[in-house]
Amino acid sequence: MFTTENLILRGFQDNDLGEILALRNDPLVQRTQTFSAIAPAPSSKYKEYMKTFAEGSALWFSLVHKESLNFIGFCCINLLEAKNRDARLGITIASEFWGKGYGTEATRFTVNHAFRYFGLQRISLDVTEGNARARAVYAKLGFKVEGIKRRGNWVDGHWEDIIYMGVLDDEWTEMYPEH
Amino acid sequence: MFTTENLILRGFQDNDLGEILALRNDPLVQRTQTFSAIAPAPSSKYKEYMKTFAEGSALWFSLVHKESLNFIGFCCINLLEAKNRDARLGITIASEFWGKGYGTEATRFTVNHAFRYFGLQRISLDVTEGNARARAVYAKLGFKVEGIKRRGNWVDGHWEDIIYMGVLDDEWTEMYPEH
Amino acid sequence: MFTTENLILRGFQDNDLGEILALRNDPLVQRTQTFSAIAPAPSSKYKEYMKTFAEGSALWFSLVHKESLNFIGFCCINLLEAKNRDARLGITIASEFWGKGYGTEATRFTVNHAFRYFGLQRISLDVTEGNARARAVYAKLGFKVEGIKRRGNWVDGHWEDIIYMGVLDDEWTEMYPEH
Amino acid sequence: MFTTENLILRGFQDNDLGEILALRNDPLVQRTQTFSAIAPAPSSKYKEYMKTFAEGSALWFSLVHKESLNFIGFCCINLLEAKNRDARLGITIASEFWGKGYGTEATRFTVNHAFRYFGLQRISLDVTEGNARARAVYAKLGFKVEGIKRRGNWVDGHWEDIIYMGVLDDEWTEMYPEH
Amino acid sequence: MFTTENLILRGFQDNDLGEILALRNDPLVQRTQTFSAIAPAPSSKYKEYMKTFAEGSALWFSLVHKESLNFIGFCCINLLEAKNRDARLGITIASEFWGKGYGTEATRFTVNHAFRYFGLQRISLDVTEGNARARAVYAKLGFKVEGIKRRGNWVDGHWEDIIYMGVLDDEWTEMYPEH
Amino acid sequence: MFTTENLILRGFQDNDLGEILALRNDPLVQRTQTFSAIAPAPSSKYKEYMKTFAEGSALWFSLVHKESLNFIGFCCINLLEAKNRDARLGITIASEFWGKGYGTEATRFTVNHAFRYFGLQRISLDVTEGNARARAVYAKLGFKVEGIKRRGNWVDGHWEDIIYMGVLDDEWTEMYPEH
Repeated sequence: MFTTENLILRGFQDNDLGEILALRNDPLVQRTQTFSAIAPAPSSKYKEYMKTFAEGSALWFSLVHKESLNFIGFCCINLLEAKNRDARLGITIASEFWGKGYGTEATRFTVNHAFRYFGLQRISLDVTEGNARARAVYAKLGFKVEGIKRRGNWVDGHWEDIIYMGVLDDEWTEMYPEH
Repeated sequence: MFTTENLILRGFQDNDLGEILALRNDPLVQRTQTFSAIAPAPSSKYKEYMKTFAEGSALWFSLVHKESLNFIGFCCINLLEAKNRDARLGITIASEFWGKGYGTEATRFTVNHAFRYFGLQRISLDVTEGNARARAVYAKLGFKVEGIKRRGNWVDGHWEDIIYMGVLDDEWTEMYPEH
Repeated sequence: MFTTENLILRGFQDNDLGEILALRNDPLVQRTQTFSAIAPAPSSKYKEYMKTFAEGSALWFSLVHKESLNFIGFCCINLLEAKNRDARLGITIASEFWGKGYGTEATRFTVNHAFRYFGLQRISLDVTEGNARARAVYAKLGFKVEGIKRRGNWVDGHWEDIIYMGVLDDEWTEMYPEH
Repeated sequence: MFTTENLILRGFQDNDLGEILALRNDPLVQRTQTFSAIAPAPSSKYKEYMKTFAEGSALWFSLVHKESLNFIGFCCINLLEAKNRDARLGITIASEFWGKGYGTEATRFTVNHAFRYFGLQRISLDVTEGNARARAVYAKLGFKVEGIKRRGNWVDGHWEDIIYMGVLDDEWTEMYPEH
Repeated sequence: MFTTENLILRGFQDNDLGEILALRNDPLVQRTQTFSAIAPAPSSKYKEYMKTFAEGSALWFSLVHKESLNFIGFCCINLLEAKNRDARLGITIASEFWGKGYGTEATRFTVNHAFRYFGLQRISLDVTEGNARARAVYAKLGFKVEGIKRRGNWVDGHWEDIIYMGVLDDEWTEMYPEH
Repeated sequence: MFTTENLILRGFQDNDLGEILALRNDPLVQRTQTFSAIAPAPSSKYKEYMKTFAEGSALWFSLVHKESLNFIGFCCINLLEAKNRDARLGITIASEFWGKGYGTEATRFTVNHAFRYFGLQRISLDVTEGNARARAVYAKLGFKVEGIKRRGNWVDGHWEDIIYMGVLDDEWTEMYPEH
């Protein structure tokens, strides 16, 4: 269990699944996920899927709000082909906790931890054009835009792009030398 | 069954698997594949994997050389999230048939066919920095570089980038109005 | 059930699993484990794993603090190839109980018991370079350094070695003739 | 498929299993394997085990003698914990092909390939004290003795040690700069 | 339900399992059991094992102390090959109830009952050399030593023998004509 | 694969099962087996049972007659509780090959091999009173009678005893110093 200024970052517990499902069924949250359509998830099937996903992540943090002890989301790292020492970052925060810097706080801690303990040389993510909040967080932390998948996502009656972002270990170390 | 100038493009047959395995075990061919390390594949396990993959592709062409009737490779289209009308292109040609334009010929036919018959709005692919031949083919046909995954691939003792490419249906139509 | 000066050493009980998970999720404790990255464990999956592991150990002691009756960790012996009469020792103590000699007390009792009742001729363990406390305990009890796996472990942003240690039955008997 | 001076190194094929079983049942060969007792293996069970093992190896080379086209053994690399970029090397050669340098030839190629294509930072192996031939091969190629597990193996009515060896990527590069 | 002077002998109940586990984890009791090493048993796994064992015994008596109504142990008969009309006797008594003749009382009743109701022609048991108390009980009741398995048991740092004992139905009838 | 003067001793193969079943269904052979009644075995069930048994044996030799290459039986070693370093020997020879010393030859080789390669300190077996031939073989090789289970076996309308035999590693070494 780890803590940052406002958050407790702890391991996955089966009883997080109810809140993970609630997150998923919030259209504001779904809008920020890249690929699938906005639609409520069938509950038990989705919970099984997420249990397998969380248990299979190299690093999964359930995010708990220090002050209220509310579960507010999760942040995770999934390894890609081992030889490439590359991983995918994912983060989801409940919409009622947006705008308070918690996403930045959790992402910074998680990326830092992944570089220090998993020996990665890069961390990758995809984010939709319409998710301006997340793009700002990733850019502020030092992720670089590596590409634009044109018309990669159909949402809300229009096309938008998908942005590829990534950060290398030496870039991270230079930005956060104390890490 | 379809034909182009030099090729017959037909459906997958189980007895293609011996030649698909031979392709896979050619280090020159493997070098062009993005993610996995260069290593010979275990025969029956790889054949099972490729049978499932080929049968699950939206569009699979086994490529046969018209003149010699040799199996020379395959070209396939795999659908991504349906609502995004996006798909991934893959092509593999036996190294002894490189440099004769067959890759270009097969790719052009396949992309054209995919736009006309599958209602796609874009086709995507990844290619390694070191695979100059393939990058030239895709560029010539009109695929645009959409991004660069820095240090995305470890091969032959060094890092190289992975190039993201894509082409949109209206771009294709403009280039190949007759299509 | 056995006792030493400060500890009760008893068999595994299913309801130890909550405390075993808590141990695992303490980064100070994880840092002392050789191979896996420091990351909180998914709760139910880890509990299943540890139940199977504990039940499959030739000798498992849940360590209970005599005075407070707190569960403070475990010490176990896992047999290797029978003909070699060799086994692996593992011990984990909650960080709030470090520095009081309990690890030494439990290890000494367990090794002694394993030699007397399991007919072993050697007991083996691995310990990371960075785990100075454990290395000191093992050395004090008479384990000999048998080797150094150079750069065997990536942790906290750097490489460290893994130390191989072992003790033979006749060495043990000579050191602890009364055993 | 790869070749060295005298050998073809190709992927695993199911029909190698008959010859892999024959290798295993040669007591001279078994004597060189570290842990299990010398005993003939039950045929179908052992073949199933080896099929799973070979298919699960990151790198498996079935070794074929160029001149006679005989299957003469195998050489393989099995990845350990990903973050440590460490792997275990295994090699087995039919006893009638010993003493011709084929083990050296295959090991050198395999280690070289593993460093170049799998991004490893070390390669590890265990060898018994009694297997002087293999120890000489590994030492000649540049593996360093990293430790000695005293009385680690019971064989032929006596105890012998198990030798831990390893080589680091920078050591390899310095020895084989052209690699 | 049966009674003897000091004991109630009743059938197995699931809630005996807690006390059967406690028995098993008493090192004094374990020392009297022939084959396995002295080590505390994992609780739920051992309970499942003993439930299956008790339910599969031809004759199982949970032994209850008449006066205090405490569960003090069990005595059981397990049939061997039916045609041989032979069975194995087992008995375990909590160490705090040793030395009061309860083992003799329970064994005599059980053996008698087994001959009368199960049509056996002999009853067999094994006992370790070090378990002098039990050997005396069996001898007093009329079991004959039938053999000595030399160095059959490793315990407490030394070898000891295992004693084979048995009694025939006609021997029993002669000793206990009223039975 | 090993050889003795007249025999090849090789590992278990699935296609031995037909001959193992034929052996079992020979009443002369069954008569020599200790416990079960003389009755033909149901073929596929018995084959499955023997496949599991053979594959689970620490050491299994299918015995092949060097001259005729006939399968003539098997000889096997099954480990008991590891800490006791004790094992059970079993041997079965087709009745048409009795009286030629093959049982002695196979047993001697197998016992010798088991002591040298499995680190055992004793080898145990049971033999029926009526099986004079086998008792003579075991006695000649140095097995000692350790006990007599009186009326242990019902066969052919009468009771006979079961003889417990065993040999210790130091006894064996003294008799066969060159082993």
